[in-house]
Amino acid sequence: MRITAVAETQFLEKVFQKAGFSATDGSLLADTLVDADLRGISSHGIQRLDWYIRMVQDGTIKPQNQVKTLKETDTSMLLDANGNMGQIASALAINSLIKKAKTTNVAMAVIRNSNHFGTAGYYSRLAAQAGLIGISTTNTRPLVVPTNAIEAFLGSNAFAFTFPADPHPFVFDGATSSVSSGKIMVLAKNQKPISGEWAVDGERNIIHDSKKAAEILSEVAFTEHQSGGGVLTLGGNKEENSNYKGFGNSLVVELLTGILAQGSISADTNTGKHDFSQFFMVINPAFFGDLATLKANAEKMFERIRNLDHIPGTHIMIPGDREYRNYDYNSEHGVVIDPKTTQEITAIAEKFAIELPQKL
Amino acid sequence: MRITAVAETQFLEKVFQKAGFSATDGSLLADTLVDADLRGISSHGIQRLDWYIRMVQDGTIKPQNQVKTLKETDTSMLLDANGNMGQIASALAINSLIKKAKTTNVAMAVIRNSNHFGTAGYYSRLAAQAGLIGISTTNTRPLVVPTNAIEAFLGSNAFAFTFPADPHPFVFDGATSSVSSGKIMVLAKNQKPISGEWAVDGERNIIHDSKKAAEILSEVAFTEHQSGGGVLTLGGNKEENSNYKGFGNSLVVELLTGILAQGSISADTNTGKHDFSQFFMVINPAFFGDLATLKANAEKMFERIRNLDHIPGTHIMIPGDREYRNYDYNSEHGVVIDPKTTQEITAIAEKFAIELPQKL
Repeated sequence: MRITAVAETQFLEKVFQKAGFSATDGSLLADTLVDADLRGISSHGIQRLDWYIRMVQDGTIKPQNQVKTLKETDTSMLLDANGNMGQIASALAINSLIKKAKTTNVAMAVIRNSNHFGTAGYYSRLAAQAGLIGISTTNTRPLVVPTNAIEAFLGSNAFAFTFPADPHPFVFDGATSSVSSGKIMVLAKNQKPISGEWAVDGERNIIHDSKKAAEILSEVAFTEHQSGGGVLTLGGNKEENSNYKGFGNSLVVELLTGILAQGSISADTNTGKHDFSQFFMVINPAFFGDLATLKANAEKMFERIRNLDHIPGTHIMIPGDREYRNYDYNSEHGVVIDPKTTQEITAIAEKFAIELPQKL
Repeated sequence: MRITAVAETQFLEKVFQKAGFSATDGSLLADTLVDADLRGISSHGIQRLDWYIRMVQDGTIKPQNQVKTLKETDTSMLLDANGNMGQIASALAINSLIKKAKTTNVAMAVIRNSNHFGTAGYYSRLAAQAGLIGISTTNTRPLVVPTNAIEAFLGSNAFAFTFPADPHPFVFDGATSSVSSGKIMVLAKNQKPISGEWAVDGERNIIHDSKKAAEILSEVAFTEHQSGGGVLTLGGNKEENSNYKGFGNSLVVELLTGILAQGSISADTNTGKHDFSQFFMVINPAFFGDLATLKANAEKMFERIRNLDHIPGTHIMIPGDREYRNYDYNSEHGVVIDPKTTQEITAIAEKFAIELPQKL
């Protein structure tokens, strides 16, 4: 079904308050999910609600806990998300870094004891809106098999980088691995095969059956039992195609998150203590030159790339192009909620005695 | 042939002085090339000498020019390499950032009017030796075809990230594209085919003939004439294998280098003004926790990864493992100089009336 973003927001705010979050925190959580749905990143939209509520109910998430600032300087922050949702500490971090970077030109934050924070791009986009470069990363549950390995160890480890530009900023946002587990889950839900080199089994054979791949990912992400296999690093299955570079990118995120935060590394979040860590950075491009000039130069480059000769029938898109197009369309026509999520939020609405958003 | 690193250094220092560099700058240039040869990165070793000397002789490189500091704060630098070799401004930048980051925790530099700077890893390793995280990037000549495009536009855009650890730091260092052009040139020189998805022709067919690929790269990198094709982004030929993520990584480097520096973007360095730009960052991990603990935790993670179940007959290597092994071996047995480079340096030795290094 389709519902308006306003209706989605109002519904989510009510749910999060009933679940025990403050009004402010509930609004933030709602905004991150609605924003993802508007941008067509439905893997990180309202379909996460059921999981979030379950984590509150099983005590993984502590919705009343306050973020603790453990260390802070003009340029640097170490925060403790204190077992609450990742969005809360992350928004605090990025908003502080935006202020800091305007005077110090560069600032960074690490968050420990955190959890899912929505899309990485949400925070980096806040920096871009302020005329700044934003970098956001998180580790995740273990999903990804290193080069030559046959068992998962690394997280899908999202990375977002934004650069101010008009009509919209450059927004590069996604898993550092070949795909996120969400993309595989969506195919499995729709009973469609995997065409690309996304996942392998315990003998490192490429899996095209999305249901089989989804089962492997559920096992590696949520149990201690590892029968092998997982998502591939960017570069695919073979070392000759430089998949060690995708492995390196994923490791960079592990080092900046779990290691710097002294939290769990991705490999240790499938059972027991379930904590993710985040790293944020904001850079002020205006230190290096007039911001309007830099933005115009970036946009000129993007426009030249969009117009390069290309394979007939395809388009060349700059990171961000697709999500801003979706944002405009879905703002006008409403966001899509899939049937399974509709079932889930219907049950949540009944449980909390809240009215469901009206179908468009 | 093999020669000792000491003999290579002495030879290079003499050549660079004869070519017009100061003794200090010549020593630095020699060190970056010898270091690459010791680490087995021969594409960035003494085989670059002939090209460097030709750039001095045709006026592209101005060996007497001094680096200019255009702007500087506690955390930030904008430098002008002033048409001299990239190594000179880059070493100045990284050494300044190492000092800055020890007090401000994070510091960054952008360099304009620069040129080839050797390996990106050279500078990041200096940060790691000081117990810091080092990030180094550069743009390059145009070589890489964006997702769905059939003409080259992006540089191979090197990225190096180091993290302190024992017995050696984490050193992730390489082109952001599927491969550097150097790897293709080496195969072409040895008349070996390309087995992986590295390069495409003007119809985006994968090229396995390394000579043909080398010809395309020479055309796109050094002429205005573009008959199409180039190196692939990380992720290979097909959008379904997420090659737009490799494209995104390459664009991040373009933005941090050519755009922030207001220098040429990679696409515009094949003819006319030949300037590269660099971006460096240093982060102090000790802000976030005890350095010895962070290093030990990183090494524990690396060791667990090295020991994961893997495909029989393969090894799992952490970025840096191979180059430190090469360093130890070549320090003892000497560095390898290929026949073509031997011819080139023989001619250079004659021209400058310098004795060739003794063959081991």
